[in-house]
Amino acid sequence: MTRVKLTVAYDGTDFRGWAAQTGRRTVQSILTDAVRRVSGEENEIVGASRTDSGAHARGQVCHFDTTRPIEPERWVGALNRLLPADVVVVNAKSVHPEFNSRFWALDRTYAYRIVWGPRDPFRERIAYWTPRPLDQDAMRATAQNLVGRHDFRAFTEELDPKVVNTVREMFAVDVRELRDGATIMVRGTAFLRGMMRRMAGAILEAGRGKRDPESIRSLLDPERRDALTWPVVLPAKGLRLERIRYGRHPRDARHNCQDDEEN
Amino acid sequence: MTRVKLTVAYDGTDFRGWAAQTGRRTVQSILTDAVRRVSGEENEIVGASRTDSGAHARGQVCHFDTTRPIEPERWVGALNRLLPADVVVVNAKSVHPEFNSRFWALDRTYAYRIVWGPRDPFRERIAYWTPRPLDQDAMRATAQNLVGRHDFRAFTEELDPKVVNTVREMFAVDVRELRDGATIMVRGTAFLRGMMRRMAGAILEAGRGKRDPESIRSLLDPERRDALTWPVVLPAKGLRLERIRYGRHPRDARHNCQDDEEN
Repeated sequence: MTRVKLTVAYDGTDFRGWAAQTGRRTVQSILTDAVRRVSGEENEIVGASRTDSGAHARGQVCHFDTTRPIEPERWVGALNRLLPADVVVVNAKSVHPEFNSRFWALDRTYAYRIVWGPRDPFRERIAYWTPRPLDQDAMRATAQNLVGRHDFRAFTEELDPKVVNTVREMFAVDVRELRDGATIMVRGTAFLRGMMRRMAGAILEAGRGKRDPESIRSLLDPERRDALTWPVVLPAKGLRLERIRYGRHPRDARHNCQDDEEN
Repeated sequence: MTRVKLTVAYDGTDFRGWAAQTGRRTVQSILTDAVRRVSGEENEIVGASRTDSGAHARGQVCHFDTTRPIEPERWVGALNRLLPADVVVVNAKSVHPEFNSRFWALDRTYAYRIVWGPRDPFRERIAYWTPRPLDQDAMRATAQNLVGRHDFRAFTEELDPKVVNTVREMFAVDVRELRDGATIMVRGTAFLRGMMRRMAGAILEAGRGKRDPESIRSLLDPERRDALTWPVVLPAKGLRLERIRYGRHPRDARHNCQDDEEN
């Protein structure tokens, strides 16, 4: 038995997200079909992050087990020959038999792209458009206030009662300049459902002068947050899962995200 | 009566090209509908280049006449509110009453994008993919041989008997490096049908080591071309009309492309 780790990129526009749902075109379903056609087995695919309907990925990670003696790198070509053009296997390797793409992740990096100025049909599928330029200094100040270990309750949707722990750690929240726009890059342990799209929403509001960057400190404070306007959620099309990092050894893994609902 | 010049960008993936055809989704049809809804008139839209089904544009140009006293720059917002997300009016201005987007053009610039390496779902709609890296020196040598005034008969499809003049002038043919790819940029007076996609095809063949860059000289020579393998035509999705230049005064116009079938 070999455990295979895949790195997968997709344009999420025409997918109903990552997670398999009956009768829906999802990345997990299409990838599962392709893996099963190659192996002739009933493999289960376990993904690291359940990306939303319409969200993209450059570095989604998943794993599956197979008894077929296929060299790991052969999976790339075999799967890409079967997959549609909007999903691509970038890399395949054999991993430790206990490797788990979800629970062994050290951190995840998401990007949210905002563009302004004349509408650009070539960025329509992959960025959120706003007519006027944003104040990038205010965006950066807001981003800085999100770094660290905080209770991100105000950055998620109405909670599943099972999700009791809304504390997450963000290692880096950066605003990078684009031609006529900005990319918000966030690296953190794990993300609550809709959290990345609401962090981007708060940063956008600050960039429009509609939110004081200091209000973030109150939103992250359980005592004060309910008195405030919580951030808007931006559409999934601007969101992309960029990268998931893993340690070299199982003991590096952080078993800290059992109750996560990913972006 | 005002003559309005529009600059238009579109992702051509879901269009059957520029030119209106009954029952087809074309850029000209959709733009004509939008202009007529704003004006309440039966305006005719005249485009500079008839881009192929699936080809894109960043700087297509067209013109129409209107009696409505709408300030030219107001057309941008009014049309973009009606247009779908894959076509955008970038600019509108009022022009000389005899301006003609097609016949007054000084030159047109097309780009053809080729990418290699792992397939990239985000460039799938806008580039031609080939698995292995190409020899960019051979591509540049081939490109150089296309510059100048030549008979491009070997770079077009079976000719419409009306097209008697297959001589065109290319001012610049450049190969620019991309991350994992190259963009072929061509600026010329006007282009025969399929010509840009065949110039890109010849350059690709040279980049794969399948065509001697010197063979271009023979292809451009009416005495020798029929003894050679003519270039392949690459798919439209890699092609984008970048820019059309016009002079400041009508006398700058080149009335030299009455019989063109554009890319």
